[in-house]
Amino acid sequence: MLGVCYYPEHWDEGRWETDARRMVELGITYVRIGEFAWSRSEPARGEFNFGWLDRAMDVLHAAGLRIVLGTPTATPPKWLVDECPDILPYDEQGRVRGFGSRRHYTFSSKTWWRESARIVEAIARRYGAHPGLAGWQTDNEYGCHDSTLSWGPEDLSAFRDWLRHRYQSAEQLNEAWGAVFWSMEVTGFDQVSLPNGTVTEPNPAQRMDFWRFHSDQVAAYDRMQCDLIRAHSPGRWITHNFMGFVSDFDHFKVAENLDLASWDSYPIGFVEKFPFSEVERNRWAETSHPDIAPWHHDLYRGVGRGRFWVMEQQPGPVNWAAWNPVPKPGMVRLWTWEALAHGAEVVSYFRWRQAPFAQEQFHAGLNLPGLDELSPGGAEAAQVARELATLPPLPETRPAPVAFVFDYPSYWATMIQPQGRDFRYEELVFRWYEAFRRLGLDIDVVPPGAPLQGYDLVVVPTMVHVTDAARAAIEAADGMVLIGPRAGSRDRTFAIPENLAPGPLAGLTGARVTQVASLRPGLEQPVTGSVQGGVIRWRDHVTADADVLARFADHGPALTRKGRVHVLHGWPAPDLLEALAAHMAEVAGLQTLPLPSQIRLRRRGDWWMFFNYGPGDWTLPSGFDCLMGGQTVPPQGLTIAQRITG
Amino acid sequence: MLGVCYYPEHWDEGRWETDARRMVELGITYVRIGEFAWSRSEPARGEFNFGWLDRAMDVLHAAGLRIVLGTPTATPPKWLVDECPDILPYDEQGRVRGFGSRRHYTFSSKTWWRESARIVEAIARRYGAHPGLAGWQTDNEYGCHDSTLSWGPEDLSAFRDWLRHRYQSAEQLNEAWGAVFWSMEVTGFDQVSLPNGTVTEPNPAQRMDFWRFHSDQVAAYDRMQCDLIRAHSPGRWITHNFMGFVSDFDHFKVAENLDLASWDSYPIGFVEKFPFSEVERNRWAETSHPDIAPWHHDLYRGVGRGRFWVMEQQPGPVNWAAWNPVPKPGMVRLWTWEALAHGAEVVSYFRWRQAPFAQEQFHAGLNLPGLDELSPGGAEAAQVARELATLPPLPETRPAPVAFVFDYPSYWATMIQPQGRDFRYEELVFRWYEAFRRLGLDIDVVPPGAPLQGYDLVVVPTMVHVTDAARAAIEAADGMVLIGPRAGSRDRTFAIPENLAPGPLAGLTGARVTQVASLRPGLEQPVTGSVQGGVIRWRDHVTADADVLARFADHGPALTRKGRVHVLHGWPAPDLLEALAAHMAEVAGLQTLPLPSQIRLRRRGDWWMFFNYGPGDWTLPSGFDCLMGGQTVPPQGLTIAQRITG
Amino acid sequence: MLGVCYYPEHWDEGRWETDARRMVELGITYVRIGEFAWSRSEPARGEFNFGWLDRAMDVLHAAGLRIVLGTPTATPPKWLVDECPDILPYDEQGRVRGFGSRRHYTFSSKTWWRESARIVEAIARRYGAHPGLAGWQTDNEYGCHDSTLSWGPEDLSAFRDWLRHRYQSAEQLNEAWGAVFWSMEVTGFDQVSLPNGTVTEPNPAQRMDFWRFHSDQVAAYDRMQCDLIRAHSPGRWITHNFMGFVSDFDHFKVAENLDLASWDSYPIGFVEKFPFSEVERNRWAETSHPDIAPWHHDLYRGVGRGRFWVMEQQPGPVNWAAWNPVPKPGMVRLWTWEALAHGAEVVSYFRWRQAPFAQEQFHAGLNLPGLDELSPGGAEAAQVARELATLPPLPETRPAPVAFVFDYPSYWATMIQPQGRDFRYEELVFRWYEAFRRLGLDIDVVPPGAPLQGYDLVVVPTMVHVTDAARAAIEAADGMVLIGPRAGSRDRTFAIPENLAPGPLAGLTGARVTQVASLRPGLEQPVTGSVQGGVIRWRDHVTADADVLARFADHGPALTRKGRVHVLHGWPAPDLLEALAAHMAEVAGLQTLPLPSQIRLRRRGDWWMFFNYGPGDWTLPSGFDCLMGGQTVPPQGLTIAQRITG
Ligand SMILES: [Zn+2]
Ligand SMILES: [Zn+2]
Ligand SMILES: [Zn+2]
Repeated sequence: MLGVCYYPEHWDEGRWETDARRMVELGITYVRIGEFAWSRSEPARGEFNFGWLDRAMDVLHAAGLRIVLGTPTATPPKWLVDECPDILPYDEQGRVRGFGSRRHYTFSSKTWWRESARIVEAIARRYGAHPGLAGWQTDNEYGCHDSTLSWGPEDLSAFRDWLRHRYQSAEQLNEAWGAVFWSMEVTGFDQVSLPNGTVTEPNPAQRMDFWRFHSDQVAAYDRMQCDLIRAHSPGRWITHNFMGFVSDFDHFKVAENLDLASWDSYPIGFVEKFPFSEVERNRWAETSHPDIAPWHHDLYRGVGRGRFWVMEQQPGPVNWAAWNPVPKPGMVRLWTWEALAHGAEVVSYFRWRQAPFAQEQFHAGLNLPGLDELSPGGAEAAQVARELATLPPLPETRPAPVAFVFDYPSYWATMIQPQGRDFRYEELVFRWYEAFRRLGLDIDVVPPGAPLQGYDLVVVPTMVHVTDAARAAIEAADGMVLIGPRAGSRDRTFAIPENLAPGPLAGLTGARVTQVASLRPGLEQPVTGSVQGGVIRWRDHVTADADVLARFADHGPALTRKGRVHVLHGWPAPDLLEALAAHMAEVAGLQTLPLPSQIRLRRRGDWWMFFNYGPGDWTLPSGFDCLMGGQTVPPQGLTIAQRITG
Repeated sequence: MLGVCYYPEHWDEGRWETDARRMVELGITYVRIGEFAWSRSEPARGEFNFGWLDRAMDVLHAAGLRIVLGTPTATPPKWLVDECPDILPYDEQGRVRGFGSRRHYTFSSKTWWRESARIVEAIARRYGAHPGLAGWQTDNEYGCHDSTLSWGPEDLSAFRDWLRHRYQSAEQLNEAWGAVFWSMEVTGFDQVSLPNGTVTEPNPAQRMDFWRFHSDQVAAYDRMQCDLIRAHSPGRWITHNFMGFVSDFDHFKVAENLDLASWDSYPIGFVEKFPFSEVERNRWAETSHPDIAPWHHDLYRGVGRGRFWVMEQQPGPVNWAAWNPVPKPGMVRLWTWEALAHGAEVVSYFRWRQAPFAQEQFHAGLNLPGLDELSPGGAEAAQVARELATLPPLPETRPAPVAFVFDYPSYWATMIQPQGRDFRYEELVFRWYEAFRRLGLDIDVVPPGAPLQGYDLVVVPTMVHVTDAARAAIEAADGMVLIGPRAGSRDRTFAIPENLAPGPLAGLTGARVTQVASLRPGLEQPVTGSVQGGVIRWRDHVTADADVLARFADHGPALTRKGRVHVLHGWPAPDLLEALAAHMAEVAGLQTLPLPSQIRLRRRGDWWMFFNYGPGDWTLPSGFDCLMGGQTVPPQGLTIAQRITG
Repeated sequence: MLGVCYYPEHWDEGRWETDARRMVELGITYVRIGEFAWSRSEPARGEFNFGWLDRAMDVLHAAGLRIVLGTPTATPPKWLVDECPDILPYDEQGRVRGFGSRRHYTFSSKTWWRESARIVEAIARRYGAHPGLAGWQTDNEYGCHDSTLSWGPEDLSAFRDWLRHRYQSAEQLNEAWGAVFWSMEVTGFDQVSLPNGTVTEPNPAQRMDFWRFHSDQVAAYDRMQCDLIRAHSPGRWITHNFMGFVSDFDHFKVAENLDLASWDSYPIGFVEKFPFSEVERNRWAETSHPDIAPWHHDLYRGVGRGRFWVMEQQPGPVNWAAWNPVPKPGMVRLWTWEALAHGAEVVSYFRWRQAPFAQEQFHAGLNLPGLDELSPGGAEAAQVARELATLPPLPETRPAPVAFVFDYPSYWATMIQPQGRDFRYEELVFRWYEAFRRLGLDIDVVPPGAPLQGYDLVVVPTMVHVTDAARAAIEAADGMVLIGPRAGSRDRTFAIPENLAPGPLAGLTGARVTQVASLRPGLEQPVTGSVQGGVIRWRDHVTADADVLARFADHGPALTRKGRVHVLHGWPAPDLLEALAAHMAEVAGLQTLPLPSQIRLRRRGDWWMFFNYGPGDWTLPSGFDCLMGGQTVPPQGLTIAQRITG
């Protein structure tokens, strides 16, 4: 189904009815509103002004639309900031991040919790039972604009509290952090400082705790909102719209509070954000890379325990990347269908109409700036609506044969301690995901510790700290397992394990890491054996009590196998990664369909959905009947097909 | 005529007489003094010590020199800063910019206005009627070192006042800024904040107003100085020495107060400042690019309503660029002649003698450091003086056939909202200027709204907000008109016009912009038709009720024409720009003389003056008689010729 | 002899005895301890807890190890910082640099001097006569992490005091700084400000004084520590462990207080720090460049007036560079031998055992993380110990035939005023050193003013300010002298000399600099004559009353000679530098042995020690008998040989 993000407060009331009618005509079912509308609803402390929102909800409901209502906590209004400056966040350089855009609050501020609860409760009370209300969105894009971590006095105070609970005594804190090093020992929690502004690098265990602390705060803050909403709005679901490539907090933890996950899909903007090469950036500038949106769909399907929406779908050029091209004709339709292929329940476009004013005035909408006239993206959305109406209902999403274990704390750990400047967790995972998707495989993304039984192949690109639960899940896996470099290299206190890396995985892998090397760009170490190619960026030097399937030139193990568990002891260059993926698929007994770099496949039930991101036609292999589209998939096109089972 | 910048306070009084005599011998008429000499004239509050300056003026006057006296407000002394720290500016990161160099004041400080008035009046009273005094320079290089904008408490206070006058009520402010977006609404002007230190980008309309506010302040501050000077110094002219490539305030507005414009010409330093490619930077490192100085000459001739000086002319290597080569022999002479060719009344070298101490000790002068001995640049200045003495008087400067409309607010608008990282207004204008100059055309630069009648061709590289006056002037033009991308894309409140871009130009152009694309380096969209080549960086997707002279590959209009008005709907790559310039010159009926990239031509009356920036000889086309130099122009040489009219 | 850095406070006491025994077994003589152990020794003000250190010293002594004890002042503990925040340094942007790593103090704080004296005296009293104590190390790596300069209120106060002593009156200060320029004059020392946070560049003479002031402070602070130690620990030597490529203070001055110099040798980390090209960085990533460690050995042998240690020797991968590869097998042994070849008395590895916790957990040790098991580097150290036991005692280090004059203030001067962005003093010196080492020559490094008699060749890559003593030493040299660009270009007050550069060297060189050019990358000026090649980055335009051995294309002198004194008037490109070195060696009558880029030679007495940094074998010229290793030196290998004198 389709949805749209709408801001009634941006338009004269006289236009609301037309807007609602045209939404329905276009084929839209859901409309999200309200998530930045605090100043309009409470222009001064306690002076609530909900009349406009009452009327807007009624108009939308009357038109037959189902409403998703956002809490407006991403944008505390100026009177509140002036009254309570202690809600403001601080950047790592110790500067206040002030009013004037959004997300100008720190999760550490008790004042902020009190004020958030006040506005959330007021809105939940007023609208919780509105007949047009389908569900809720908490806040907006937690963590966007580097807003998870904050470095102010409120943060220090809250961090000390968190540490008190975790460590109970200064002695245990000192022990956990190795604080004897460089005379960092404290005699009480009130001596703990923030891990910023130091002369050289701060203690990594302290930094890791600081990150965990902030991640915990996001989850607790969201739970607070959810609890208030549930108290006043029974029977409605709650989601949060996560942002792409924001890994500063553990989304799996936040989603424990939620009924379903959602995310904001800006495939082209992300091309400038992700560390692609310039060649790739140029290649994918106007279509996006074919795994950018799919990776997130699979991730958030996992985060949502099977249920997710695209809450904001890019409908044309955006305003916030370094460059913002117009997507190639067809891409808005393709992205929408691809989201559905990966299991999205609703794809909701951002936004109904391009705003002629303020920060996002260069951000396209389904309608041209200020007008009641569809944009090119709007016309493509209408096409999808027509197609959906024509086709039979979409089949159920089935479990994939391959599971990727995604571990937010590994992102924090490698950001804190990259050791090589280009060791980026998100890039490692993305490249491995791409390699398996190029084989035509469907992939589920799961958190560490989730059950792994039933998967033919489990991929763990890395997992810096392996908890007991995570180790047990890997041990209990009944398919093949592939693990990458740096796994198990830190324990719970961010120390090197007593048995060296991979720590708790030693028994499962047979490996023992004695030295680690980060390799500058230009250094590549060749690997030969069952798989061939190069290792770049990172190498673990290991001794192995396991089968050595491939070796470095100095005979050090590169790929080892013990039972089902394979370990690649380095960061694979593209050639090695391709060989590795093929090798693992083979030993896992997976049926693959190798695809060119611009083609992707995703199944939903017995529908095989092929997407063409390239500039030329691509023809399906034989053996398919087409439900939508033809055997030849045109550029920016898609085909839905079923295997001929005769 | 020639001039020189002199700092009597830097040298023993015993040397002044010799200096003055040697200036006159060299052929110098004007000497500028005093513009940084506050601490020497008022070493402590109210303790004026003008004796040295009295004597210096008398010595210079006695030698027959005409004096330009600068007000010393660019360098408030330490006792004043210690006493009144509220005069200090703040950078965008919120840090005080302190004492220790120059321009350490904010235009917003009322204290600073009071103190400026005090010193300016004291000096104007004392020297206003000095017989040696020719004219005045206010302050020094407004805006240099990013000193236009400031972000401190004084600025916030003054900004709120400025907004009160502009908007009258908070409601109107909210409306103008679209402040409902992201809950930015205020209930009073005392809630307005500065547009810095935000979590993500601040409101662009707020930023635009902040820029306008600062630009207005510069003009008002300069007018305050001018009013005081005029009250005490009747019959003397006033100028300000503008800096090159400083566009943070509207120079046309400041010049309304002035009798003539002047600017500081550092052709080689600017090669490192302007966004040239590395290849171009190397090519022009020791000569400068042949349009750098000319562009500014033409600009400031326009700013000065026909009258301008070069107040500071680079006389050799400077000290402030990333690299500072020695100019090739001949360049100091060439630059001087080129300034005269473009209509400069006086070319004044900076400085008489290289200072062996302080910040500019690596900056060449006409004399070697500390010595009474000409530098190589000094010798070239002497040569110009001899040449001027030999030649007949220079003919009058005539109006050019081509007008460029230069719009400072378009610089602010595109800095605030580049949308593509490399959309730089100054670069766009410069490249278009270069293309027409390569055709041997003379160019006038005029402000938006200036009358355009009489020009065969009017070029508007862009104009983001088109005022009524600017639209009317374009409509009234009687030559051909060429407009570039993004024109008319914002209204007075920085909103997208209700009829979409080009807003008020819709009727004149027949175009309507529905989508805009910024294109990353490497993306190029081919254009075919009456002109051929590529579009880079930016494309406006338009529908056109006009003749389409060239199209993109997707058939979208690239170059349109309605009546006299042509619009190029993108940023032209070099090949397209060259074709476009040729096309426009042809349809405008202009006589062109295509020149190689290293040769430029400028006429003054019936003198054709050819300048050779290249490493090899260049020969004039036939049909010229030479007044100075020969048919073959040597490297770093020039020829003044007249057309053989027989 | 070999040593090791050990942190008993990091390990259970129960492990100390085993550690000590294993050290002795490995062949280690010296053990450095204590230099970061303040919080353990004084956990709260006045509560000393030295028991652990008593026991540690006793255990180490009992095992037969000689102890080097460090004062713990590099790591003031948190209670002290909380109590006395005025000890904290400020960065150039005016931000406090806080607790949480190390070196968080400013040398300007009187509180800090008092507290330093307190802890140093307490330790010196307690351990000064310990029978296991061989000597002392003051603090740790002065200047590391940009910790020499600080920009806070304590620094301003101390700077004003320093200026009062230097200049006596504001008038003299104004004169020395040329403060009349830009109205910087002050009427008292309390008006002096710090040279940071200015709108454009601050006064260079002020900056130079600020740097001198800080350099003086380091020396005075170190002398304070030394005085206290000597008072309580008669008969023990004192050293400080200097860091590589830290030139913010004058190491020669600090070493005047010391009995011997020592330095911390991280050859691979420095590859990322030194401005090598990417090609060179890749080439030397896993071995280091063959002059990185040797340059420092020669420098610190000079700093130590003939006596130096390597106090910290890299034993494997480190943690602090942008990338941290594993050194190639053999390099730890090679580096150790090379230090000995250059005269190191002791090579002490950092550290005994890799720490599994805190900031350096990725830094290798002689033992694996947390374990009693040698790392690969540990095994190489053991090999060196065995080799040392087998060979005869190492011969004495003899004076070298070539002297390099290294001048710390020239580093400050060119940092303050690079004039061309890539004029880097350390790079200039290093490249000249490399060129002469490639000829197989041994080199001594001496400070300005040191006697130069007896050297066949004296090289002064540059010396911005030439003191009387430095000029006299050059004049008195009895070998050939080679001087580089910018020499003598500033006087004592950082002004251009009255006779222009080279100022006091004018008579010796016959040169006079009239213009200077910095040349951007890509500009190269060819030189022809006795030497051929290109000049890049910098050229002095000179007139010369001397023999001109080579000229630029414009006939300007490039290489001049007057008597023994040669001057190269530019920064040589590699080809010109190679030709220059060969030319100078020839005219100096030096016996050279040209070596490939990956091979180096260093003599100690009659031992010729050849080191192979390359990937292939290299064979000695004929005429040598091998003491260790063979005629063919393998990759990462070395050969010690003696000339066959028959
Ligand atoms: Zn969003
Ligand atoms: Zn100037
Ligand atoms: Zn160290």
